[in-house]
This record gives sequence, C-alpha cells and structure tokens, in this order.
Amino acid sequence: MGEEMKAWERRIHRVSPYTPGEQPKMENIVKLNTNENPYPPAPAVQEAIRSFDVQQLRKYPDPAVAELSSAIADTYQVPKDQVFVGVGSDDVLAMSFLTFFHSEDPVLFPDITYSFYDVWAQEFEIPFETVPLKEDFTIDPLDYIPRERGGRREGPIGGIVIPNPNAPTGIDANVSAIRSIVENNPDVVVIIDEAYVDFGATSVLPMINTFDNLMVVQTFSKSRSLAGSRIGYGFGSKKLIKYLSDVKYSFNSYTMDAITMKVGVASLSDPDYFASCCQKIVATREEAKQRLRALGFHFPDSRTNFIFARHESVPAKELFTALREAGIIVRHFNQPRIDNYLRITIGTDQQMQRLYTFLEEYLQQAGWRAGD
Amino acid sequence: MGEEMKAWERRIHRVSPYTPGEQPKMENIVKLNTNENPYPPAPAVQEAIRSFDVQQLRKYPDPAVAELSSAIADTYQVPKDQVFVGVGSDDVLAMSFLTFFHSEDPVLFPDITYSFYDVWAQEFEIPFETVPLKEDFTIDPLDYIPRERGGRREGPIGGIVIPNPNAPTGIDANVSAIRSIVENNPDVVVIIDEAYVDFGATSVLPMINTFDNLMVVQTFSKSRSLAGSRIGYGFGSKKLIKYLSDVKYSFNSYTMDAITMKVGVASLSDPDYFASCCQKIVATREEAKQRLRALGFHFPDSRTNFIFARHESVPAKELFTALREAGIIVRHFNQPRIDNYLRITIGTDQQMQRLYTFLEEYLQQAGWRAGD
Repeated sequence: MGEEMKAWERRIHRVSPYTPGEQPKMENIVKLNTNENPYPPAPAVQEAIRSFDVQQLRKYPDPAVAELSSAIADTYQVPKDQVFVGVGSDDVLAMSFLTFFHSEDPVLFPDITYSFYDVWAQEFEIPFETVPLKEDFTIDPLDYIPRERGGRREGPIGGIVIPNPNAPTGIDANVSAIRSIVENNPDVVVIIDEAYVDFGATSVLPMINTFDNLMVVQTFSKSRSLAGSRIGYGFGSKKLIKYLSDVKYSFNSYTMDAITMKVGVASLSDPDYFASCCQKIVATREEAKQRLRALGFHFPDSRTNFIFARHESVPAKELFTALREAGIIVRHFNQPRIDNYLRITIGTDQQMQRLYTFLEEYLQQAGWRAGD
Repeated sequence: MGEEMKAWERRIHRVSPYTPGEQPKMENIVKLNTNENPYPPAPAVQEAIRSFDVQQLRKYPDPAVAELSSAIADTYQVPKDQVFVGVGSDDVLAMSFLTFFHSEDPVLFPDITYSFYDVWAQEFEIPFETVPLKEDFTIDPLDYIPRERGGRREGPIGGIVIPNPNAPTGIDANVSAIRSIVENNPDVVVIIDEAYVDFGATSVLPMINTFDNLMVVQTFSKSRSLAGSRIGYGFGSKKLIKYLSDVKYSFNSYTMDAITMKVGVASLSDPDYFASCCQKIVATREEAKQRLRALGFHFPDSRTNFIFARHESVPAKELFTALREAGIIVRHFNQPRIDNYLRITIGTDQQMQRLYTFLEEYLQQAGWRAGD
C-alpha cells in the first residue's frame, strides 16, 4: 500500500484474494465463462418466489434447513440424517475441509482442479500436496493409494479431495477408480466433489452405504440453474454428517435464508424439467464436440457443461482475446500445463452457433485450414 | 456414540455444537425468545420479491454485493470502500475474527455477552479471555485499557470485541467509554457489535473516521425485521475493509444470493417505515419497563428490543416454565451470574399484554404482592 504498516495490521490474517470469473456488464454478450446454465430455473421456482409470504422474513430461518433437507433426502433416496445443506457447494466444501482435515498429514488433490481447494487449505492451515494429473489429464487412482495397499503414494495422507468430473478438464473418472481410492483410504475422509455430475457422469452416491469415510458433494448452481441462489449439499454416513453439522452450527447457525429454502424445494419438485434441461445441455455439448473438432480443436471428452479445449495451431490466449472482442466470453487460466486451453461453457444452441460462426471466420482469416 | 472411534474420526475437528434459540411449532404462541421484530419488513420488500425476475438466478450473484453495498453506503453516508456486507452479522463477525485476530495475545470480551464470541474464538483457535462485567452488568472501560495507558489491564491484548448495547443485558455503554477503549488500543482491532443499536442507543460509526482500527458491525435481522434474510454489514477504515474482503473472497466468494441483495436494497429504500417500527418498539419497551417494574421485576435499563429481568421473589426458571406452559416463550440462560434472569423480547403491544396478564395472575397465585 506504500504506507507504513501499523501495529494492528501486523496481527492480521493476510491472504491473496481470489478473483472470481468476471460478470461483464456489456450488452448482447455470449457468456460462456462461468459454467452457468443457459436455461432458467424450473417454473415452480418463479411461483415459489412470487407467492412467498414476506411475514416469514422477520423470523430467523430454520437452522436445520429441514424442509429442504427432507426434499433432498426424498429426491436422492437417502435418510435425512445423511444429508447436509450449505450456502452453495463452496460452503459445504469449506465446512468439510474445516471439519474433516484436522491432522498433520497432507491432504491430496489433483494439480489441475477447482481453484478453491488450495485456498481453503491455506485459509485453515491444512497441510496439502497436489498430485499431478497424467499427461492426458486423467486421474491415476494409484497416486492416491498408499504403497502398502498396492498404490504409489509414499508419504502419509491426511485426506483426499477428488472432483468428479474434474474441472476445468471435464473428465469423468470411472466409478471403480473412485471406489479403489475410497476403499484403500479407510483412515481418512475422502471428499468427491460432484458439482458437474448431472451432465452425464455417474455419481458415487450409493457408495456412502459402504464407506463411512466418504463425503459426496453436489450443487444446485449448474444443473438446476440456481447459481444465484447458493444451494449446495452433501451426503455421507450419519457420523460424518453429524461431525460436519456440529462445526457448521458453531460457525454460523443460521446460514440459508428463508426464501432460498423455498426456491430449493420448488426446484426439486419438477424432476422432468430438470431432466430435460440436462438433456438439452448434453445434446448441445455433443454437437459442440463435433463442431469444435472440425475446427481444429482438441479436448478431453467432457461429461460436464463445459469443454476444455486447445486449438491445434492458434494459441489460447489469442483466441480468448479475439472472442472477447467479439462479445463471446470464455475462461482462460494462466497456469502451468493448461495455459493453452480455453474452458468453454455450453450455452444454448443459438449461443453456441455464434461461437462456431465467429471461430470459423477467425480461423480462416488466421490461415488455418482443416487437415493442414 | 457408544461405538469404537475409527481412525478417520480421530482426525476430525470436533466441536460442541451450539444450540440456537428454539423456533417452536405450536400454534398461537407468543414468541418473545429470539429478539425478532414483531412487525413485518418494509412493504417495498414484498414488492421486490414479487417482481424478482427468476432468470437472474441462473447466473452467479455479484460477489461484491455492489448494489446493496452502495445502498448501505448511501444510507449511512460512508464511502463504499468502507462498507463490508455479509450473510448476517454472524458472518461479518466470524470473518472479522478470522481476519483481525491473528496473534498469540488473547482477545478480550465480556463474560456475559453474545454466546458466539467464544465459539468462534475456539473454532479459529484464537486465544481469548473474558472480562467480568461489573456487579450491575455494565462494562468498565478500564478493564480493556492497558495499565501503561492508565487502565487496569495487566497482560497483552490481541483484540477486543464489545457488543453495544450488550446482549443479553440490554445495557448501552456510553460513547465516551467506547472511545477510550478504542483510543487506548491502537495496536489491535476493536470490534463494536451494534446488532441492537437502532432501538435508541448511539452508534460509534462516526469514529471510523478517527480510528483506523475500529470495526462497527450492524444487522438487518432486528431493526429491519429481516432475520430470515441473513444480511449483516460492517464499517471500518478502507484498510480494514480491504483485509476483511480479501479473507472473505478467499473463503467463499459468492455468499449472498441474488434475491436477498434486492431485499436488502428494498428495505433501505423506506427510511420512514424503518423509523416508525423502531419507534413503536421503543414505546412498547418503555411501557414494558413500567409494567414489569410494577410486577416486582428488576432489570438493567434496556436500549434494545428486549428486557433482561429477574423477579424479586419468584425464580427465573420457575417463571420460564410457567410462561412456556401458557404459550409465552422467553429465553433463559443456564449460566453463572445470569441464571435468575429472563430475556424477554419486545413484541407487539397485544403480545406484551398477554405477558402482563399472565404474570399478574401467576404472581398473585404465587402469593407475591407489590410492596411486600
């Protein structure tokens, strides 16, 4: 800050602030940068908001979020005391880090992954080590399994976080890979972050019945078009959820506001709408794979609502800037191993068409030709 | 749990869960136990909810909460970069603890006070010491001022939290007492928690211009009838707010949902409604003081929306149970020094009348007579 630091400032917990994906204020842009759902929430959500009785707001909301917890439990056929609800999956994950990772041994997660894991670890002073993904960006389960159990991991393990599908790669590890990681780490908690699971990947939710050290985290932000509402949830053994709830209540016992609780319940009340939105995004994504491939892009096979792509001749940074100037916003990460990739959120067919049209023209002008 | 503890459980951060004030499900009760406002939020709030465009929910909310921050800045005539917004004042306070109290020296707060301070301190492993209130439950500023500056405090100080007015006592420390505490602790951050300030107490907000180590925290939960919405905010020097925001963004960058932001802005848009609600509660409280005094109660002079009272002959626990059986819920704390007190929230005149009527009959039957 250029100024002298005062005594009180030396006592402060200083962190490097995280920069969230931009929410540009321009008109008529195609926003494919924050993995939001291009379709509106279920019609029942609008109805729930419209008919919300404002009188309820003067009272504290139910700290147990019981109505929404029950609706989630019913939807996923899980007992109520195995469900945890938080203000977005970030809240569920942060609380899980704070609760479950409380030893001197390092927590493991992939080197290329959701950018908050290392931030929370630093925040809560949790030791961690990142495990490099393989060359093709897939996870090798052996890297997370101790040597004495047939894996490749040498040192101790304090816990494990695996996003599945992973972000920003979009790759879905298969269920048996996850199973072997959980099975061979019975002494620590394993968190599987399934933020993107509803777009065609397979959830490991049924495994919570077998492994009491498994925490599965999901969210309403992507597949339920409710990023603006902040609803996340998780599943685990009764014991695991009890430990997590104890920490959550002691931290801030009234977190989810009364309207959001109704919004969540309303969203769950329309499974057909949910399924059809997910199907539309999957269909658009599969078409995007063909279109982008034909345009010279390479990418891992995504099971999410985004594609993580590099072009065979034009650098990502150049494309990112050109797209931005054309009003098409995608995400670029200035990070080792992935700085030549763009993360492109799947929008509506119309939005994607604008992307293809622009890319076709741009690449042609840049001298790129298919099959070169 | 009776069962053997597994290895993963030994790595877990275990806390004793906090028990929030009950939200009873009975019909026709008089709920005077959680310091909620008996009047509905401003009419503009209902309108804001009704006209909310559900399309906005599919996008992430503004992480800077800019619209609401600006409205708060305008309302309180404070520059925008000196305002911090959180999901309830619990969130603002917890983030403040995490950010500002990061030394080996103990943080000081009163022995009788808001029950979350010690919970957060334990959660974040912040050393703390409670300072006994005087016999009459007032704060002695000298207890918070180091000896070398003319105070009575012997050891080092890592930070200070003073709720003003204090809860559950309801007592307002005068502004010069707070000023002397802040002035004589320039090397640590001093947090003044003003959750109840709008019911006739005096805010120290103007002091943020003089002291860059002062954080003032307020809430929409009580005076704005929005406990169900979770909106808290704080004011401080530009530097202080910057440090706090950095930690908040790194913890969970999208916390306040999009509807709540509109709710907060709508509430601020009607200052007359706000003033008239606060005035009604103050008027009812002043009448309650007379009525309760006439019924043999003793209490510190409250400047809040509750009265912290003991009866001169009937034990608090007995009254608590009798009231509860009559459908009148108040709060009793099973704690040293205050276990003979009841915290009675100020309700509507009608609700308070039910309280007086019941107490008159009960005390008469119990053989109590005024002037005995």
